[in-house]
Amino acid sequence: MQLPSSLLENAVNEFAKLPGIGKKTALRMVLHLLKQDINEVEYFSETLGRMRREIKFCQRCFNVSDADICSICANSQRKQHIICVVENIRDVIAIESTQQFNGTYHVLGGIISPLDGVGPDQLNIESLVHRIQKEQTEELIFALSPNIQGDTTIYYIQKKIQHLPCTVTTIARGIAFGGELEYADEMTLARSLANRLPVQQYVKS
Amino acid sequence: MQLPSSLLENAVNEFAKLPGIGKKTALRMVLHLLKQDINEVEYFSETLGRMRREIKFCQRCFNVSDADICSICANSQRKQHIICVVENIRDVIAIESTQQFNGTYHVLGGIISPLDGVGPDQLNIESLVHRIQKEQTEELIFALSPNIQGDTTIYYIQKKIQHLPCTVTTIARGIAFGGELEYADEMTLARSLANRLPVQQYVKS
Repeated sequence: MQLPSSLLENAVNEFAKLPGIGKKTALRMVLHLLKQDINEVEYFSETLGRMRREIKFCQRCFNVSDADICSICANSQRKQHIICVVENIRDVIAIESTQQFNGTYHVLGGIISPLDGVGPDQLNIESLVHRIQKEQTEELIFALSPNIQGDTTIYYIQKKIQHLPCTVTTIARGIAFGGELEYADEMTLARSLANRLPVQQYVKS
Repeated sequence: MQLPSSLLENAVNEFAKLPGIGKKTALRMVLHLLKQDINEVEYFSETLGRMRREIKFCQRCFNVSDADICSICANSQRKQHIICVVENIRDVIAIESTQQFNGTYHVLGGIISPLDGVGPDQLNIESLVHRIQKEQTEELIFALSPNIQGDTTIYYIQKKIQHLPCTVTTIARGIAFGGELEYADEMTLARSLANRLPVQQYVKS
């Protein structure tokens, strides 16, 4: 694709670096911006730069934040003795959207995956262990991806804190709401059977 | 979707204004940028602002350009007496990609569409008529969308320049290369039959 202007071409190349965006989509976006008011595009550009420059990561849970401590950690209405361990910020946003969790988070920044060169030292695991000790956390809930890497991470952290008086749980695996039983994979179905719930408890939840 | 930071939220809202981008995709893009080096994001942001501020439109053909006259109009290797009339910049890029056209362009900036409130005065039609007169253009090729609006625009411009000694043509309508005959709509098929070509001419092209 040959573009008639190097300014246009640079902008298209930058957009095409974004995940899931090819050159054609990038061009569509840039031509859209070209039609907008110059002040709006300036605002877009400034918002981006400012976001990257000024955004902080919560010193306690590593969630993104406008301040040194994020709004969830700073909220005294939330149960500060319950920590939900997640892989990344997107998981925090997903769980927050359910409006069903009233504890705090700890963002690992990834999961243990030797094949991708990610070991425990690259993740926020040390800080989690310190935090559990210091804050006398009552419950640790793992909400990690249901795969080998997720299970390895759970196993590793669980080993590190087994001497501490903290309940450790993991979110339930099972047939997704609205999912068809016959299309569920064997692993999910097997775990779902093994971890069956009394109907009374199911109705209550 | 509740976001843990207003800086993040602003950036997501800006991205979500782009065509075809929803909030979830916007979030994915912003979180991707968050992981990038700060200098790279600054460069992205600057490139965008600079593109909108500094980009020019060619004073002759209204294509985007880095200078007052675009690289196509300034190229003496191209046939300056042939003008291809297109709706927008994307069409110029599409035709340039074929590497089969060696004339110049005229970007109308839209097509006549009374239902959308677009009349001839909002388009670069006056300048086209002046240009044909002044430059003694030999051929005008319409490459507009094959619909009522496109045909109206062709008819309107053709009326305006009928007194000028300029050949007026339009790109061929027909069955697309690789298209299945049985799935072509009646209009296309009918036109394709009416405008049939001698096989010798077809083989040559």
